[in-house]
Amino acid sequence: MKEKLTIIKVGGGIVEDDLRLQSVIDAFVAVEGAKILVHGGGKVASQLAKDLGIDVQMIDGRRVTNDEMIDVVIMTYGGLINKKLVALLSANNEQGIGLTGADGDCIRSSKRPMANGLDYGWVGDIERVNVQFFHELLQKKMIPVVAPLTHDGNGNLLNTNADTIASEVGASLSGMYDVSINFIFDLPGVMENVEDHSSLIKSIDRQAYTQLRSRDVITDGMIPKLDNAFAALDQGISLVRLLDISGLKELNNPDYDEFTIIH
Amino acid sequence: MKEKLTIIKVGGGIVEDDLRLQSVIDAFVAVEGAKILVHGGGKVASQLAKDLGIDVQMIDGRRVTNDEMIDVVIMTYGGLINKKLVALLSANNEQGIGLTGADGDCIRSSKRPMANGLDYGWVGDIERVNVQFFHELLQKKMIPVVAPLTHDGNGNLLNTNADTIASEVGASLSGMYDVSINFIFDLPGVMENVEDHSSLIKSIDRQAYTQLRSRDVITDGMIPKLDNAFAALDQGISLVRLLDISGLKELNNPDYDEFTIIH
Repeated sequence: MKEKLTIIKVGGGIVEDDLRLQSVIDAFVAVEGAKILVHGGGKVASQLAKDLGIDVQMIDGRRVTNDEMIDVVIMTYGGLINKKLVALLSANNEQGIGLTGADGDCIRSSKRPMANGLDYGWVGDIERVNVQFFHELLQKKMIPVVAPLTHDGNGNLLNTNADTIASEVGASLSGMYDVSINFIFDLPGVMENVEDHSSLIKSIDRQAYTQLRSRDVITDGMIPKLDNAFAALDQGISLVRLLDISGLKELNNPDYDEFTIIH
Repeated sequence: MKEKLTIIKVGGGIVEDDLRLQSVIDAFVAVEGAKILVHGGGKVASQLAKDLGIDVQMIDGRRVTNDEMIDVVIMTYGGLINKKLVALLSANNEQGIGLTGADGDCIRSSKRPMANGLDYGWVGDIERVNVQFFHELLQKKMIPVVAPLTHDGNGNLLNTNADTIASEVGASLSGMYDVSINFIFDLPGVMENVEDHSSLIKSIDRQAYTQLRSRDVITDGMIPKLDNAFAALDQGISLVRLLDISGLKELNNPDYDEFTIIH
């Protein structure tokens, strides 16, 4: 039987709120076995850009990473958020190691080509994950803390979606480990009505997904999240969950089911 | 015979100048055997602080790292400078791994206590280096790229002088390796007259150091640099050099001697 590996993806915004950050760390520390923490950081980067007077450009909700913005995301994703998480893990007796894709050449990507006249700038599409590097860290009981940055092997760091990093790293390691991916967000999972917690949809398969989209229950930002989740399943991930911090705290509790499983 | 380990410390300002950065990377890549790159970053941090409207406070030339400034140095030292160096090493087929002291719990420090009413803020004095962690990376032919940040084990990152990091890491590894430390700066070494390259002092021992200080040849910022170099020798480092990029390029050349050796 393969060893379990739990991948947990959190938004970068948690570092802005000490209380929420501590509760994520507490919940993460309680997760048993091999684990990887992947974090985002869009809000923090946008705030720093604003403070520096740099325009944040978006195309269809996706960030355009120009020359100024790539430095901002390297500073916030690779620096501020990543290192604070690693330092906090250490305070909880967990040995974290902060990584961008350049560190240990662990995630190589290629710069997204211009398409239909749209240029997203310094954005990377993942090409390969250094499985051996992650495996060796995990075998030493270290926790890779992965920032949403990859590199092209030519000296350039590239902005890369954190959900995609979680899925691609998980898929690459699924030959060696029994991988689950847990996307933490502000809701307990996918809900019929976000105002009503009893409307949580505990399980979604492809057929249900199609129906939920046609009924406009799943819209906007949830669509790429779900698409990414199904893509991860196709690549060999055993289990994908959408959940909130309360769910993360109960990850070792087999009786808890207040989250959405994608299957 | 112990394996050679070459530690090279560069200023963080190099990332601001593409041409100089490339020449440092080229020279570093040419260095044979196990090696560690330690970088500073004061200028880049001060510029970001200025851009953000944060006052840079200094006491006797030493930075005061208040709550705002620690975030600035985490972003610049741990993020921008560190990750750019790692990405550039990769472009030159060297596998770097960017580290603060928190990563892999590799450099633990304690917050400097207030003394004589002076509070330097989030500044760390090194307590211990995780020798095993560095050793394992070096044995895998990886290059630790170390930012001037340590951590206290309680979740706090601490600003720590890069020269001191180079010396302490080197000293800790001197039981396992034959360690040399090379401090790269803008001059070929210690000079009688900075305008005259033929006035380079190629070798300094303690007696010469005392004389050069009394004659005001070594003043200001050079004093802590030299004090640190002699402290490193006392802790088991075989060789300490002060040199410029031209010297770094010739590090494998036994006939080149246009640098200052501290012994």
